[in-house]
Amino acid sequence: MSLKQLIANIKPLDETAMRSARARQDMLTKPAGSLGRLESLSIQIAGITANASPHLEHKVIVVMAGDHGVTAEGVSAYPSEVTPQMVMNFIHGGAAINVLARHVGARVTIVDMGLAIPLPAMPGFVSRRVASGTGNIAKGPAMTRAQAMESILSGAEIVTAEIAQGLDILGTGDMGIGNTTPSAAIACALAGFAPAEIVGRGTGVDDAGLYKKISAVERALKMNQPDARDGLDVLTKVGGFEIGGLAGAMIAAAANRKPVMVDGFISTAAAMLAVSLAPGCWNYLIAAHRSQERGHQAMLDWLKLAPLIDLDLRLGEGSGAALGLSLADAACKILNEMATFGEAGVSEKG
Amino acid sequence: MSLKQLIANIKPLDETAMRSARARQDMLTKPAGSLGRLESLSIQIAGITANASPHLEHKVIVVMAGDHGVTAEGVSAYPSEVTPQMVMNFIHGGAAINVLARHVGARVTIVDMGLAIPLPAMPGFVSRRVASGTGNIAKGPAMTRAQAMESILSGAEIVTAEIAQGLDILGTGDMGIGNTTPSAAIACALAGFAPAEIVGRGTGVDDAGLYKKISAVERALKMNQPDARDGLDVLTKVGGFEIGGLAGAMIAAAANRKPVMVDGFISTAAAMLAVSLAPGCWNYLIAAHRSQERGHQAMLDWLKLAPLIDLDLRLGEGSGAALGLSLADAACKILNEMATFGEAGVSEKG
Repeated sequence: MSLKQLIANIKPLDETAMRSARARQDMLTKPAGSLGRLESLSIQIAGITANASPHLEHKVIVVMAGDHGVTAEGVSAYPSEVTPQMVMNFIHGGAAINVLARHVGARVTIVDMGLAIPLPAMPGFVSRRVASGTGNIAKGPAMTRAQAMESILSGAEIVTAEIAQGLDILGTGDMGIGNTTPSAAIACALAGFAPAEIVGRGTGVDDAGLYKKISAVERALKMNQPDARDGLDVLTKVGGFEIGGLAGAMIAAAANRKPVMVDGFISTAAAMLAVSLAPGCWNYLIAAHRSQERGHQAMLDWLKLAPLIDLDLRLGEGSGAALGLSLADAACKILNEMATFGEAGVSEKG
Repeated sequence: MSLKQLIANIKPLDETAMRSARARQDMLTKPAGSLGRLESLSIQIAGITANASPHLEHKVIVVMAGDHGVTAEGVSAYPSEVTPQMVMNFIHGGAAINVLARHVGARVTIVDMGLAIPLPAMPGFVSRRVASGTGNIAKGPAMTRAQAMESILSGAEIVTAEIAQGLDILGTGDMGIGNTTPSAAIACALAGFAPAEIVGRGTGVDDAGLYKKISAVERALKMNQPDARDGLDVLTKVGGFEIGGLAGAMIAAAANRKPVMVDGFISTAAAMLAVSLAPGCWNYLIAAHRSQERGHQAMLDWLKLAPLIDLDLRLGEGSGAALGLSLADAACKILNEMATFGEAGVSEKG
């Protein structure tokens, strides 16, 4: 399906389902509004799914991986070889995202969107490699415009395939040494932020590394002149394959009326791209958490999304999204499983 | 066991277990510190349990219920008859706490600490009634000093019995129409807050009701002159049976090296009492969430506890604690289940 078709398939939230869910929340045995964001979340999910009693049985976290040419600028505390090593760790179930996904009852799918070196076929691992890592954005574009479109459509196809296997809510995740740098560049390109406001320490660079990151983002923007009005141009010039894949995944989820639990810094950059390309997908997004990474709050503010959780996480992988999925599930269970005042024989407000 | 013995049984956190847990966190396949509060939480729980690999298999939420004479002052939006009605709702599994406890895999025990009218014996329901509701604190003491001690020791015995059945972490919950009023009075008595800073709308009183609540707390403090240096006096003068029970439960959990997930406004008032009576139990407390109820943040600040969650909840029952239990469980699973850099063959920071 073309990006234009996907975007055309994104519909507004279902007002009837939202009204029914709101009415039911007000009948449940609790003071109206006393479950705060769990209530509003359940109503948003009712609107997303066009179902006044939404169930989030099948929770799926898609972790997209890619490598980044900009690591040549010394922007990461870890070497690029860690990207495929961590992908293997995901596949063997030993990473944080595996532990948290098991904890919340979510399935994890790992996608190679553009690792520098291909990995062999393995269960739970999908290869949709666009290329062997991006170009160094400090010196030129990350990718071609055709590759940017391919990354988005591949991400969309991944989600379509996951929906066929059973997906009630999508959690986003990422792996890619160096990818906080293109994510910061995307945010700056789309929202006009100054790099020094947005660039953070990622996996933990020191002051010298932080300076190199800020400089790399400044040079990337100056060299490539991404067009803020053209999300595809921004992805092409300063993006990453896994970031484009996540944007496509979000757009496809929205086109299929599935809620999207957006993880931290990298996923939020992808959400900014997704909303730039397909403004209607905004309604389908839920911000899982506020990352400890500098700049994330400004990106959430630009998106007008309020995070559910603030636990000083800064890992990525979908770790924050996993915790958010559990809250979304809890919100829907409240809506579906609580007794009403009438059913329980509880007196209403005097 | 006497309160004095319980307090004497509270030991400091186990530094050896905490050091081991910290060392392991730093070996796991993630940048050190990147899981933020999940890491520090796992280390606290290691110290609490004196176990470098703590498992929170048995999660128990104890919901203590009581009635309050101060409802005669028009301080609640709901009539007192709702207290036993909601207790029945808990027992039938239709309340928010039941839904959330099922979601996080916790057992719920309901305790009558002092309902106005006794309920028949039922499975999952424990009767430890101190009296048929408290006195009206705006006009005199809530209870006698002997009743205050009884409520604390009963709460402690409840937890001791739960530990015998299997309890790895305690979540606290409450039910009692009117109980935000004594909770606010306890906070003001212990910390010297002005009632207008602390008193909130509870289950949803209007402006007139809010004024009545503030006035009731002001009169309760003036009439009873609770002694801030004597937690038992504060409980006696302006407390509640379920609040004393929760304080005793927290002290007993600490005495048995069990972590305590403190719910919202009422549980935090109980935590202030517990810490006043037994300063050593502070190390064992985890604040689940920041309540929407006015004054809760000031109480958490006084306790020097940072909440895990902020979802604008204001229901009580242990609803916030239930969500917190799931995060504590996740924190321990991260510690226990993630692969180390060595195990996974992942390169360390360059």
